[in-house]
Amino acid sequence: MVEALRAGTAPSPGAGEIFQLLRDGRARTKAELASLTGLARSTVALRVDALLSAGLLAPAGEAASTGGRPPVRVAFNPAAGRTLAVDLGATHATVAVADLAGGILESRTRAIDIADGPETLLDAILADGAALLETAGTGPLLGVGIGVPGPVEHSTGRPTNPPIMPGWDRFDIPGYVQRRFAVPVLVDNDVNILALGEQVTSWPGVDDLVFVKVATGIGAGIIAGGELQRGAQGSAGDMGHVQVPHGTGGERDPGDERDLEALASGSAIAASLRAQGLEAANSSDVVSLVRAGHPAAIAATRQAGRDVGEVLATVVNLLNPSIIVLGGSIARAGEHLLAGVREVVYRRSIPLATQHLAIVQTQAGERAAVVGAAIMVAREVLSPASVDAYAAASAAR
Amino acid sequence: MVEALRAGTAPSPGAGEIFQLLRDGRARTKAELASLTGLARSTVALRVDALLSAGLLAPAGEAASTGGRPPVRVAFNPAAGRTLAVDLGATHATVAVADLAGGILESRTRAIDIADGPETLLDAILADGAALLETAGTGPLLGVGIGVPGPVEHSTGRPTNPPIMPGWDRFDIPGYVQRRFAVPVLVDNDVNILALGEQVTSWPGVDDLVFVKVATGIGAGIIAGGELQRGAQGSAGDMGHVQVPHGTGGERDPGDERDLEALASGSAIAASLRAQGLEAANSSDVVSLVRAGHPAAIAATRQAGRDVGEVLATVVNLLNPSIIVLGGSIARAGEHLLAGVREVVYRRSIPLATQHLAIVQTQAGERAAVVGAAIMVAREVLSPASVDAYAAASAAR
Repeated sequence: MVEALRAGTAPSPGAGEIFQLLRDGRARTKAELASLTGLARSTVALRVDALLSAGLLAPAGEAASTGGRPPVRVAFNPAAGRTLAVDLGATHATVAVADLAGGILESRTRAIDIADGPETLLDAILADGAALLETAGTGPLLGVGIGVPGPVEHSTGRPTNPPIMPGWDRFDIPGYVQRRFAVPVLVDNDVNILALGEQVTSWPGVDDLVFVKVATGIGAGIIAGGELQRGAQGSAGDMGHVQVPHGTGGERDPGDERDLEALASGSAIAASLRAQGLEAANSSDVVSLVRAGHPAAIAATRQAGRDVGEVLATVVNLLNPSIIVLGGSIARAGEHLLAGVREVVYRRSIPLATQHLAIVQTQAGERAAVVGAAIMVAREVLSPASVDAYAAASAAR
Repeated sequence: MVEALRAGTAPSPGAGEIFQLLRDGRARTKAELASLTGLARSTVALRVDALLSAGLLAPAGEAASTGGRPPVRVAFNPAAGRTLAVDLGATHATVAVADLAGGILESRTRAIDIADGPETLLDAILADGAALLETAGTGPLLGVGIGVPGPVEHSTGRPTNPPIMPGWDRFDIPGYVQRRFAVPVLVDNDVNILALGEQVTSWPGVDDLVFVKVATGIGAGIIAGGELQRGAQGSAGDMGHVQVPHGTGGERDPGDERDLEALASGSAIAASLRAQGLEAANSSDVVSLVRAGHPAAIAATRQAGRDVGEVLATVVNLLNPSIIVLGGSIARAGEHLLAGVREVVYRRSIPLATQHLAIVQTQAGERAAVVGAAIMVAREVLSPASVDAYAAASAAR
């Protein structure tokens, strides 16, 4: 199948269309598929046979017969292939084997330092992936999806000036990965795959969702009109560098203006706590202090929520989402960040846009990242054009 | 055809798909259409015949023959039907008759007062439309597209708390229009149809475009990933109520915080000029003063540009558009608003997002509104589902 997807055979129109219909998981007969697509019955029969022999579809019981041999139903078979999904953070890397519906079969997380650079880290991650592929599931590997903690040119999979990824700028991640696994490789910003993972696992059917990650840095993944929005150069969702002109805290100079990240990230909260004489080297110390109920840490986290809320109030006016999801370590340390965000957004945004707006904590948590990466690559390798090409190659054999 | 579109006949799958292919204006044979869609040749023949007899397609010359009778080519026929496109402003209303490709056949503009309320104004506008339909073009009327100067619930076509449209709140515009013209009626915010019109007429192929109208009020139409983004309740693009925490002008209190509209709209500029002792009752006086080269009016307009730029800097970080288009009377009064916007956006947004960003004046001008309204309604009445239903009804006759 891998070979077929790369074979560049002339496409078989219709196979992709049939397959997209069946991706909802429902079983259907060939007659139903012909009627739903308008494809000729002979075309449907050929395409379904090719998809069956490839394993992308599987028989799914018999329909009620109207006389004669009962017609066979077919359905999407998520076990027909596997993907590798990678969530690369500043200090951790998770690699998972997923089925074609984004279901995680097995995963492994290791502590890393992103500054070790692409070759060293990708070698280790791909070795983990190869080990997992030995035991998790059985279908062929169809693609690799990778989320990284910085801006990415999505069309080439190269990070572009990633601030916390020294040595990764313009590195050809897909090219390097394909030396080991010769399959399609898609790379995106970690916050984009988190948004996708959160939508798929917790908010199916929600077309306008903004996911905000507040951790060492701050970023957003924007789903608008049902689609992940990457913008013209792939830098959409850069909330961290939006300038916030004042804090609502009493001690701040109202004329002071900083990047949101410099005010409300885990690192910024840690710095403000150090200024108060507390021991807080980084965002994970902030999380520990908040969880321990330390009043200054709680107050600083709530204030960070208000600062994030300043920018989200603008996001709400501009994009009118129905769900804002807060994730990242600072969001998961308790309800304090959420409370600060809600306080500002409901006060500052226009009533029409907040009337049906929910602002919630992440449901899927860190797992959303590998699910999102798996969904991103599955959508690509199971796109109508890819499936058409595959069915043609399969039929030609 | 109108009746057919409303008939609710069971759809004919394939007709819509064939038609969407042909909307690019290229002529194709039935054999080419069968090969491109994967539909059975017999299905293609039936659907093309139905679309031909309806006039949506027209014969377009003969293809080179490989022996025997040369095959006939068919192409989209934009003259098969007409739409009414309405651009309703605070003080003017334009109604136009358009073909199915958004080409304006004839239009009429009259001075109005939006506060006269929906019945009075719609009666006058629809009478103008009926008069234009007598002389402009010949196809059946297939739909009406209307842009209004306020937020609209797109699914129902009802304005929702429109600040400058007294008497219009929750008014059922489609229902009222359909008493006179029994066709699909789509209503949207004027800035959304301006964005669509500007994209179609001046920036085809640009998928990420933000149109900002600066006139009596301020609003934005956001096209992201190729689609107009209306958000969950249709209020997306409300830039006017984004709070701008400080002006960069010397006389402002840096802690002062106002809606962008209260700082940078035509009305706000007029108020700031009155405070300097100038005669400026409204935004059209501002435009006159700027065009006459009055230094205070030019300075105030440039400052308004900087304030708009403060919000656009955030838009650029969040959405990474490739084009920002400035329209509305204040933008068209000269380059001063544009200069202020550019000054702030290029300084404040992240380099990756501004590297390939163009910030330009509207090309299409006010005409973009009726073009956008015509395109909006043509896309709806020529959607695959509508065309499928129509072909089925046409075949059944």
